[in-house]
Amino acid sequence: MPCEFRMIHRVEFADTDMAGIIHFASYFRYMEVTEHAFFRSLGFSINTRTPEAEVGWPRVHVSCDFKRPLRFEDEVEVHLRVREKREKSLTYDFTFRKVNPSIEVAHGSLTVVCVAVDPETDQMKAVSIPDPIARQIEAAPEEVMI
Amino acid sequence: MPCEFRMIHRVEFADTDMAGIIHFASYFRYMEVTEHAFFRSLGFSINTRTPEAEVGWPRVHVSCDFKRPLRFEDEVEVHLRVREKREKSLTYDFTFRKVNPSIEVAHGSLTVVCVAVDPETDQMKAVSIPDPIARQIEAAPEEVMI
Amino acid sequence: MPCEFRMIHRVEFADTDMAGIIHFASYFRYMEVTEHAFFRSLGFSINTRTPEAEVGWPRVHVSCDFKRPLRFEDEVEVHLRVREKREKSLTYDFTFRKVNPSIEVAHGSLTVVCVAVDPETDQMKAVSIPDPIARQIEAAPEEVMI
Amino acid sequence: MPCEFRMIHRVEFADTDMAGIIHFASYFRYMEVTEHAFFRSLGFSINTRTPEAEVGWPRVHVSCDFKRPLRFEDEVEVHLRVREKREKSLTYDFTFRKVNPSIEVAHGSLTVVCVAVDPETDQMKAVSIPDPIARQIEAAPEEVMI
Repeated sequence: MPCEFRMIHRVEFADTDMAGIIHFASYFRYMEVTEHAFFRSLGFSINTRTPEAEVGWPRVHVSCDFKRPLRFEDEVEVHLRVREKREKSLTYDFTFRKVNPSIEVAHGSLTVVCVAVDPETDQMKAVSIPDPIARQIEAAPEEVMI
Repeated sequence: MPCEFRMIHRVEFADTDMAGIIHFASYFRYMEVTEHAFFRSLGFSINTRTPEAEVGWPRVHVSCDFKRPLRFEDEVEVHLRVREKREKSLTYDFTFRKVNPSIEVAHGSLTVVCVAVDPETDQMKAVSIPDPIARQIEAAPEEVMI
Repeated sequence: MPCEFRMIHRVEFADTDMAGIIHFASYFRYMEVTEHAFFRSLGFSINTRTPEAEVGWPRVHVSCDFKRPLRFEDEVEVHLRVREKREKSLTYDFTFRKVNPSIEVAHGSLTVVCVAVDPETDQMKAVSIPDPIARQIEAAPEEVMI
Repeated sequence: MPCEFRMIHRVEFADTDMAGIIHFASYFRYMEVTEHAFFRSLGFSINTRTPEAEVGWPRVHVSCDFKRPLRFEDEVEVHLRVREKREKSLTYDFTFRKVNPSIEVAHGSLTVVCVAVDPETDQMKAVSIPDPIARQIEAAPEEVMI
């Protein structure tokens, strides 16, 4: 059962800033794009309509540690691992490795909650991860967490 | 009847790129933010729900000419003028002047169409600008268009 | 001699806005990413250091016409064509076709000027496109411009 | 000696996504804009050239916790507090309060390192915070950290 996913990103010009390196917020774009590609790899869209409701995945906690800068046109491999799977939430860890030379440049995480919009109140509330999705995702084993 | 609006923006760090100057797409952010502030100045939100429908304003044509670069922390005055008002669309011109020294740095335009989502087809279709809005906006006189 | 380039982009979540469709400024990101991939396909980086100077390509005119919306996870083929090649500038046309179903959704253009930073004044000034680059790029024939 | 700073931001259209609420990465834009306004309030630019070198402030750790969503045109007060001041780094805490009604919506942090580019290696290395800046900033007292 899938617990990880890898994806290569390239640092684009608009991802840089006047310091000549990648702007730190770009890492969150890469995390999110990788999360959504992970869902597609399982046959789902992150924007899923179940028979009961349309579910979404707002973030409740995000973080990133930066070790080395990335520069324009660098390729970076983003390695997503499911750190924790709960009834209504998922936590992903992300390791960023520059491709050439291969070197870890950053480490991030996203904790996301599965929500549905209550049609009566128009408010989002946490719901159980829909079964078809929950059955496809598991937490990565401890030993994979290097 | 209002036909223009002015707003000061500051070039933020994330708006720059590795060339050390503002990234060109940032001008479109400033145009849009100014357009929406113009609507608020009239007592409306750009995201308007009329008794009949929720109307939106997708862009059909946008452009920008760049004369001089802006840099981090520069202040720029964005001067919006309504160039054309039609039954279902508006065209805005935007002049960008750096504040200090005062110098024109760019000139842009947005042509936007008033649409409502057809609840049956879930498609957007052009509709007449709602009366309360249409009554508040007029095209700027020719002679203002320097 | 190359005069065109094609690249597939996917509409990412952060490229959308509350209207539920792609934000219009995202098209400029796709144009620029395609332009830079075109340069890499020729063996260059857009960020080129020649023996004389480091050249850059600020934009002097950009535009985009929008025909149909794109939505989250849509794939779009961006077709870059060199419309005009001058001594110090290039103009690209971009046609955006949604991949499935294949349908044109937008048409854009970028006019870019080759500049070098004058080390004495720290100002950018237009310079001739470096020979190694100029020799690799030509304007697309008229008949290709459908 | 200053240890905090407050700034109001408005959620702009481009800051939202198709979920109809603010995109989570926008909070990092607001944190950074507030950090830079804090520096300006002290008479400095974040982009400071000292007699010795040009110093910058790359991030080494960033995080954000999200409690409630923000929506288009919401005003949010960002309250920056200096949590820790070390010889070569600063840690800021940020509390985000929606203005109307006043309610805490998020809490973030940035840890930034003062660096200078070594002209010989073109690499960034951590340096002591320049005196004129260090003399102007102090950590907020514990009791302010509610």
